[in-house]
Amino acid sequence: MRIAFIGLGHMGGPMARNLVKAGHRLRVFDLSAEAVQGLVAAGDAHSGDTQQVQAAASPADAARDAECVITMLPAARHVEVVLCGPDGDPARGVLASVPRGVPLIDCSTIDPATVQRLARLAAAQGNPLADAPVSGGTGGATAGTLTFMVGATPELFAQLQPVLQGMGQHIVHCGATGMGQVAKICNNLLLAVSMVGVAEAMSLGASLGIDPQVLAGILNTSSGRCWSADTYNPYPGVMPNVPAARGYSGGFGVDLMLKDLGLANEAARQVHQPLPLGAQALQLYEMWSRQGHGQLDFSSIIRMLQGQRPA
Amino acid sequence: MRIAFIGLGHMGGPMARNLVKAGHRLRVFDLSAEAVQGLVAAGDAHSGDTQQVQAAASPADAARDAECVITMLPAARHVEVVLCGPDGDPARGVLASVPRGVPLIDCSTIDPATVQRLARLAAAQGNPLADAPVSGGTGGATAGTLTFMVGATPELFAQLQPVLQGMGQHIVHCGATGMGQVAKICNNLLLAVSMVGVAEAMSLGASLGIDPQVLAGILNTSSGRCWSADTYNPYPGVMPNVPAARGYSGGFGVDLMLKDLGLANEAARQVHQPLPLGAQALQLYEMWSRQGHGQLDFSSIIRMLQGQRPA
Repeated sequence: MRIAFIGLGHMGGPMARNLVKAGHRLRVFDLSAEAVQGLVAAGDAHSGDTQQVQAAASPADAARDAECVITMLPAARHVEVVLCGPDGDPARGVLASVPRGVPLIDCSTIDPATVQRLARLAAAQGNPLADAPVSGGTGGATAGTLTFMVGATPELFAQLQPVLQGMGQHIVHCGATGMGQVAKICNNLLLAVSMVGVAEAMSLGASLGIDPQVLAGILNTSSGRCWSADTYNPYPGVMPNVPAARGYSGGFGVDLMLKDLGLANEAARQVHQPLPLGAQALQLYEMWSRQGHGQLDFSSIIRMLQGQRPA
Repeated sequence: MRIAFIGLGHMGGPMARNLVKAGHRLRVFDLSAEAVQGLVAAGDAHSGDTQQVQAAASPADAARDAECVITMLPAARHVEVVLCGPDGDPARGVLASVPRGVPLIDCSTIDPATVQRLARLAAAQGNPLADAPVSGGTGGATAGTLTFMVGATPELFAQLQPVLQGMGQHIVHCGATGMGQVAKICNNLLLAVSMVGVAEAMSLGASLGIDPQVLAGILNTSSGRCWSADTYNPYPGVMPNVPAARGYSGGFGVDLMLKDLGLANEAARQVHQPLPLGAQALQLYEMWSRQGHGQLDFSSIIRMLQGQRPA
């Protein structure tokens, strides 16, 4: 398949490499020439064909003969510019060149309202758009084990599944366009609240004298059971192979969690949904980031509650 | 075994009945004469022996020839009065009469500091004290399937296990005296935070248009996974056989959750442990209780976030 791939960062780069390994032909665009050249070289290394991955001069150039367009960008404003072109220059955008009927897949994590607005623009010229934000981090992107949360019509979902399977392990249909974003921000909202809850429970227990391992065992077999306690426990020494066991390096960064909490809180504002704990969790992560820990794994929030430095 | 059982309420009554069924001889005390007579009748019905359960005139009277003393009372002040006697009348308390060496088991949910203080008083006259708060509610108390979270020395734990097995299914050793309470309040703190987190995530998703069943399925297989979502989902229609499926009747009441959140927040105050989400969860449940919903299951908090009446 001829795929236009736009956005070759920490996530997009390894995702595009997995499409190369799956044998697709790519036309790629990124503001970083280095990222583009790296991917062209990956195509050459995979197939001995310097044409398997071609560098494009703009998003419009990447999309002009594509059978599918994939975007993986940091925020809504980037997705908007890539699809519609920069202000006053729509000719550089994907929608200026992409052939009618070709599907667009946006894998970025952005607000559902922007997704739905861009989908209406794309539909007006005959291009269906699916949102497909991911979970699994850079490790999952490299290993090809990402989870894709997809918002699309059933027909579009069926059509896109084979492409997404080249980059991920779990391809989940969440409903109509925008619902992939909704699923992701709701999950990460709950994840943040659960993690702070586990951090509070483990810190309180330890302060009151219970063995943290014993407490974790009780939580994990009781009604406090949750992923943040039984798979990703933030208390150092309770579990091996989690960020808490290595000074909170790796994992899912505080600033990435902050981005998702921001999206959840903004979306909630629009539909007048109170999020008393979600709003508080955002403030706690904001404080921790402001204290200089934005690059640490998000489970490091327990150290703020304990009044301790991360390592 | 000859057991003194003090406190025959919604929990203590069915717990004592299970000890009767296990063949123990009981001397019982409660402020309600009706509760006492009910238990005497239960002894008669079980064994045809009107002496299997005897009514005691005071806690001291219940304990005077006991081999084990069990208390199941609403709050710390009741436990204190039962063990030490009312102000100015220590002779009515358990400690005035209980034979040296006889173990005391307090199954009430109270603060760990009071447990540890009472344990020192009991130890000073040769009686070991274990705290053994329960989870499982009145249903578990009746069915004999309670979980006991026990704080005791290893020797005392081993000694008490057979008695507790007559009333419960899971008997968990949490550490030294007081650690049963610590385990319980930490679990219920996390449970409250998780439940509000699930309520926020499910409400936000539904407001943004995702199918609640689909969202629940995604949370339950992702990092938002938790008992409050996969076993006790608060969103009506997502799961059968949970309080949300029956107008939030039955289950674990808002006012009981408030009591445990109060204990967690007070204990946290004593050790200077910040609980930013736990404190907020307490306030939310306080608001919901004040609005007249204290007797509903604690998962009903989602209705407050949705701005809707419970049923």
